[in-house]
Amino acid sequence: MSGPRRIGVAILGYAFMCKAHSHAFKSIPHFFYPPPAIPDLVVVYGRTEEKVKLAAANYGFRKYVTDWRKAVDDPEVEIVDNCLPNSMHLEPTLEAIEKGRHVLCEKPLARNSEEAKILWDTARKARVKTMVAFNYRFVPAVQLARKIVQSGMLGRIYHFRARYLQDWLVDPNAPLTWRLKKEDAGSGPLGDLGSHIIDLGRFIVGEFKSVMGMVKTFIEERPLPDNPAEKGRVTVDDAFEAVVELENGAIGTLEASRFATGRKNYNNFEVNGEKGSIEFNLERLNELKLYLREWEKDSIGGWDTVLVTEKTHPYIKAYWPPGHIIGWEHTFINEIWYFLNAIVTGGDVAPLGATFEDGYRNNVIMDAILKSAETGRKVTLSF
Amino acid sequence: MSGPRRIGVAILGYAFMCKAHSHAFKSIPHFFYPPPAIPDLVVVYGRTEEKVKLAAANYGFRKYVTDWRKAVDDPEVEIVDNCLPNSMHLEPTLEAIEKGRHVLCEKPLARNSEEAKILWDTARKARVKTMVAFNYRFVPAVQLARKIVQSGMLGRIYHFRARYLQDWLVDPNAPLTWRLKKEDAGSGPLGDLGSHIIDLGRFIVGEFKSVMGMVKTFIEERPLPDNPAEKGRVTVDDAFEAVVELENGAIGTLEASRFATGRKNYNNFEVNGEKGSIEFNLERLNELKLYLREWEKDSIGGWDTVLVTEKTHPYIKAYWPPGHIIGWEHTFINEIWYFLNAIVTGGDVAPLGATFEDGYRNNVIMDAILKSAETGRKVTLSF
Amino acid sequence: MSGPRRIGVAILGYAFMCKAHSHAFKSIPHFFYPPPAIPDLVVVYGRTEEKVKLAAANYGFRKYVTDWRKAVDDPEVEIVDNCLPNSMHLEPTLEAIEKGRHVLCEKPLARNSEEAKILWDTARKARVKTMVAFNYRFVPAVQLARKIVQSGMLGRIYHFRARYLQDWLVDPNAPLTWRLKKEDAGSGPLGDLGSHIIDLGRFIVGEFKSVMGMVKTFIEERPLPDNPAEKGRVTVDDAFEAVVELENGAIGTLEASRFATGRKNYNNFEVNGEKGSIEFNLERLNELKLYLREWEKDSIGGWDTVLVTEKTHPYIKAYWPPGHIIGWEHTFINEIWYFLNAIVTGGDVAPLGATFEDGYRNNVIMDAILKSAETGRKVTLSF
Amino acid sequence: MSGPRRIGVAILGYAFMCKAHSHAFKSIPHFFYPPPAIPDLVVVYGRTEEKVKLAAANYGFRKYVTDWRKAVDDPEVEIVDNCLPNSMHLEPTLEAIEKGRHVLCEKPLARNSEEAKILWDTARKARVKTMVAFNYRFVPAVQLARKIVQSGMLGRIYHFRARYLQDWLVDPNAPLTWRLKKEDAGSGPLGDLGSHIIDLGRFIVGEFKSVMGMVKTFIEERPLPDNPAEKGRVTVDDAFEAVVELENGAIGTLEASRFATGRKNYNNFEVNGEKGSIEFNLERLNELKLYLREWEKDSIGGWDTVLVTEKTHPYIKAYWPPGHIIGWEHTFINEIWYFLNAIVTGGDVAPLGATFEDGYRNNVIMDAILKSAETGRKVTLSF
Repeated sequence: MSGPRRIGVAILGYAFMCKAHSHAFKSIPHFFYPPPAIPDLVVVYGRTEEKVKLAAANYGFRKYVTDWRKAVDDPEVEIVDNCLPNSMHLEPTLEAIEKGRHVLCEKPLARNSEEAKILWDTARKARVKTMVAFNYRFVPAVQLARKIVQSGMLGRIYHFRARYLQDWLVDPNAPLTWRLKKEDAGSGPLGDLGSHIIDLGRFIVGEFKSVMGMVKTFIEERPLPDNPAEKGRVTVDDAFEAVVELENGAIGTLEASRFATGRKNYNNFEVNGEKGSIEFNLERLNELKLYLREWEKDSIGGWDTVLVTEKTHPYIKAYWPPGHIIGWEHTFINEIWYFLNAIVTGGDVAPLGATFEDGYRNNVIMDAILKSAETGRKVTLSF
Repeated sequence: MSGPRRIGVAILGYAFMCKAHSHAFKSIPHFFYPPPAIPDLVVVYGRTEEKVKLAAANYGFRKYVTDWRKAVDDPEVEIVDNCLPNSMHLEPTLEAIEKGRHVLCEKPLARNSEEAKILWDTARKARVKTMVAFNYRFVPAVQLARKIVQSGMLGRIYHFRARYLQDWLVDPNAPLTWRLKKEDAGSGPLGDLGSHIIDLGRFIVGEFKSVMGMVKTFIEERPLPDNPAEKGRVTVDDAFEAVVELENGAIGTLEASRFATGRKNYNNFEVNGEKGSIEFNLERLNELKLYLREWEKDSIGGWDTVLVTEKTHPYIKAYWPPGHIIGWEHTFINEIWYFLNAIVTGGDVAPLGATFEDGYRNNVIMDAILKSAETGRKVTLSF
Repeated sequence: MSGPRRIGVAILGYAFMCKAHSHAFKSIPHFFYPPPAIPDLVVVYGRTEEKVKLAAANYGFRKYVTDWRKAVDDPEVEIVDNCLPNSMHLEPTLEAIEKGRHVLCEKPLARNSEEAKILWDTARKARVKTMVAFNYRFVPAVQLARKIVQSGMLGRIYHFRARYLQDWLVDPNAPLTWRLKKEDAGSGPLGDLGSHIIDLGRFIVGEFKSVMGMVKTFIEERPLPDNPAEKGRVTVDDAFEAVVELENGAIGTLEASRFATGRKNYNNFEVNGEKGSIEFNLERLNELKLYLREWEKDSIGGWDTVLVTEKTHPYIKAYWPPGHIIGWEHTFINEIWYFLNAIVTGGDVAPLGATFEDGYRNNVIMDAILKSAETGRKVTLSF
Repeated sequence: MSGPRRIGVAILGYAFMCKAHSHAFKSIPHFFYPPPAIPDLVVVYGRTEEKVKLAAANYGFRKYVTDWRKAVDDPEVEIVDNCLPNSMHLEPTLEAIEKGRHVLCEKPLARNSEEAKILWDTARKARVKTMVAFNYRFVPAVQLARKIVQSGMLGRIYHFRARYLQDWLVDPNAPLTWRLKKEDAGSGPLGDLGSHIIDLGRFIVGEFKSVMGMVKTFIEERPLPDNPAEKGRVTVDDAFEAVVELENGAIGTLEASRFATGRKNYNNFEVNGEKGSIEFNLERLNELKLYLREWEKDSIGGWDTVLVTEKTHPYIKAYWPPGHIIGWEHTFINEIWYFLNAIVTGGDVAPLGATFEDGYRNNVIMDAILKSAETGRKVTLSF
């Protein structure tokens, strides 16, 4: 009897996301045994040889390249995992699909809906599996939340409100990295953080219908990373605020900021339905808050803090006993295990994984928020 | 030696707010000794004799009347405390001012900015003291929050977000009370709850500049209170959502709903500044959450839960030792004590009390949210 | 038709407890209407004329006296409310009972079990109502907790653990008040705070069976209140720790301290049973935490934070709508309303009120902890 | 230039702890780069061939054996990691030391202090590194807590209280595993959970001086694992309670239970000092609660919830950006990295790692608690 086969992986980009993704690929057989396939970290790509060489050693890739095409073309590679800046999502992803590689692409899918449309159009005609790395879909508490909403346990949904707050730009001397330039990032926290909460709203509650929004850049110039004595213009938003209406009639708000002092990774959403509510906060990702009206009849109604570490909870069987919490990195292990399964079994990426259509719709909604911010008018979505 | 003089009080309305206000008037000498004046509950007004008679006995009024003019005209009355539905704010308040009575008027000041303008115009020409009963200004933690922001401890303010959530209408069979009719209430949670958080934003951070909003009525017909077999139309919003910009450049959101299942009295706001942040939740009104960046340098940065029950905190000297919490009703004791002081000393109602100008501006902002909701456009405020 | 009769009240002591009790007496008709009787604050007693005179004016007593016997003997007085230091519980209470006054006595009932035995023996032969003011029995969340445990909802009880922590002595220069002298107070936090949690254990779970304990005095000398330049000996404990076994087989811990920096009024207990658990913290007295194992089967097990402000919760109908929290002082309003009812209706003080037998048993348990601390041995209780 | 050398590892036992330890060994180069040495999972030992074979495949060991001596003797092995039941700590650990292997031994070091003494005596004469796997020393928040206490930031320490609560035995039909038999486990939650909090007390505050304790077995018979129709006796405690005195004069409590319904992995401790306090809860292991009295002077005193995910916090540089939490398993990664460092550099295991002396003292304290429980007397510790 032969065990699971090896599957070759190329990761584009060697920074923060590469560290998280490569760790996840390696950890899958340890936690999910037997694994759908045994990931083989074939090659990592980066522009700067010295740095990508170090990353290869650190994260355990067999090879490194400084030309992304070589990674995509490598005959040992079956999966291309695109962790590059947003401006580099389009071309390498298209190329990988064309070369018959399965593609996992970091979020947001693209800098705007036009780019995203091209990617989706290409993906739906391709034989390969494609997925956008909206990893927070793979937080056990988030999947539990979705199950609760989709099962009807909360009844008709009246509200969805979400805010993803960080504070790492509150220092005016933080440098002007690629994330602060429109040509590289497309947008600021809207694309970086807002895309996550838009995806969670669609994942848990349903499609959006219209938006009204504001964006703001609080600090307009920042020191250049390579030459702090000089300053350059910030060309993306520092924060956005939006009111939204969903297809099912629910209304709510979306917000993201890098200027919310004290909020480090505060991805917080709340759903209110006629029979109950849920709330989640990524800084306590092992917990889900739940309120059910039926408890009121016994005078014991209240917000229940579910510690999502039981064997009956999504993905937890793979890990530890109750109360032994998992970390942020486990979202990637769950996500990539799920993606490997889809590849090996030929199953759908949807509904738990984010398809390129999900990625496209996400970009459409972000474009609409930007347009509303620009025009001062409500924008009805059209996908 | 003569002690403080007696001061005659008329309360218009005998329901929930009368219960809270009358208790506060009576409790002042117990907690704030010597009191600025000794409140004398002269008369209470209500339309239904049987009910107002009972209220008079229950709350300790010497007289009751079923014609509000008799209460306002009563020569023993120096203060008229208007706790009537919003549609009855204008006329009795104008009459009371004209008769030379000091007026405390429940919030919102009026059903709309036109009515509010008349009240403000009248008030600023009068000799009497007038105040809008935005009682949450008198939560010790809220005044501490204001002090922290106004002192500059948080630096430049980037965000203000507030949501006031309740759930008492989530049952579709809840009856069609006056609060659900536009002619009586002016608006729904916008006026009832939204007015509070708009006031808190102005009180703590500063004036608003522009708004974009949505409103929604989820349940359009409800049983009539007197005849549950028949239904009538709900003519106010069930919830509103808004994005806002403040004069100082901060942006944020405002929301209120009566359909947020599990949120009972969740008046929750957050302020993010360059040096720190604060958060407050009325359901834990003795606590203020505070974050200061300067703590980060010692690796002990975090959200501090200040238990606002120390002698050095606003109003607490009047009450109990540290850790012995106060309740919702104490906001009225503090507020009315403050108002009595202004009357007796001739001091200003501002800045801690809400003036009729504050009430007017509050109505202007609510009107703008409704207009934005109607037109789908951003509305720049003009006071 | 005649309404409720007036009932004359004497309060012995004019300090902190008098402030709380007198406020409660006055507030009863406002919140509980019609009241069992209308309290009439006849007379307050204090040793120092100047101070007791001021208290009489502040709290609304018609008379004041500097000889407690005059208060007890006053023919207008039906209820004697003993708020004096522990050393003054015995004699005035006995005298009041003998004179046919109903007596509410502050906790602990006495300095030790010998004194308490005399009081209980006297009380059970008397026609009058006697009650010990263990006011935390009258926190709505505490009565809900009791109901939950007594109804069997938690099944067999395995653990009771309680700690009552304060920090007001952590400053070594805090003065040597009566609370720090054995002859006046009997003991330190053991009597002051420990008596409360012992009573809550008995009230909610059941009787104690054996104890092992330690006590400690951290700061042995402190400045005299009247002459801070000089120091005197602290003759009571600063903290105690105990392990306990209950009659029903449960085991747990009891602790109290005035040296728990940052804990202001942290009366925190937890009960673990085979089917569920509860936890309470007086600093958030409107909340009760509840865990029920049956929720686990649906993967939604967790600690529920019940906001105990619903009409269906104990005493809440008297107050405000859901989410409008009450304060520490409301425990006295509830307690004294309950006591007035017992007086007027002739009903039992038990089981919700603490009888003098409860007070005696409480003192026995405290004596046993002290004895264990002294001898280093487990003490089996004998009542 | 050659990189770090490989270091051969044998793990004894293939269950829960092996899963955690083997994962940690493999993850070290990913997070701590360059690693002190590159762990090579040479061999895993288990009694049952089928199961240990599966574990070897799952966790990535090159070999497996069913005789522990073969693992210890394997010439490729430099480190023996003993994850066997407590009854198997003594012999294999002695053998491994004798063979010149470095040993990491799971906690508690032994079933009792006699066994532990032999291990310590052997270890201190050996050239190899030996460490007890008290992994909670390697929670970043715990090391931050230690730093805060040891730096004097809290001043003189008055209290240490800790409780480690779980609920997995609350079901009377849970089977009679080795953990419930005295000959295998030595004791119940005392050794399993109590050993952790005793170690944390010693690690953070200091040595213990005397103890008084109670133990209890609530369910005396349970189904046999292999034959659930039959029952066997539980010969260990189900819970223990103790009061303790520390060498520095602090007093407090220790508790552990497997019958605390709703507490899944609630390792919770609190330290109160004259200048401040800290509190920790393993279920939220990324957080440390801190109170500093000096904040009171500005009226902003309160419990600060430090999110221990900043680069300046212990071990966090190895992981993710602020607010991206780590999980329970990271305690092992930190711990084993620390142990590898000691091996490679020849540095001391103390003070951050637990030496065999620490393990011995831990066993002495547990024996004293059992003795006190048996005799009903205070036991003064003698090491």
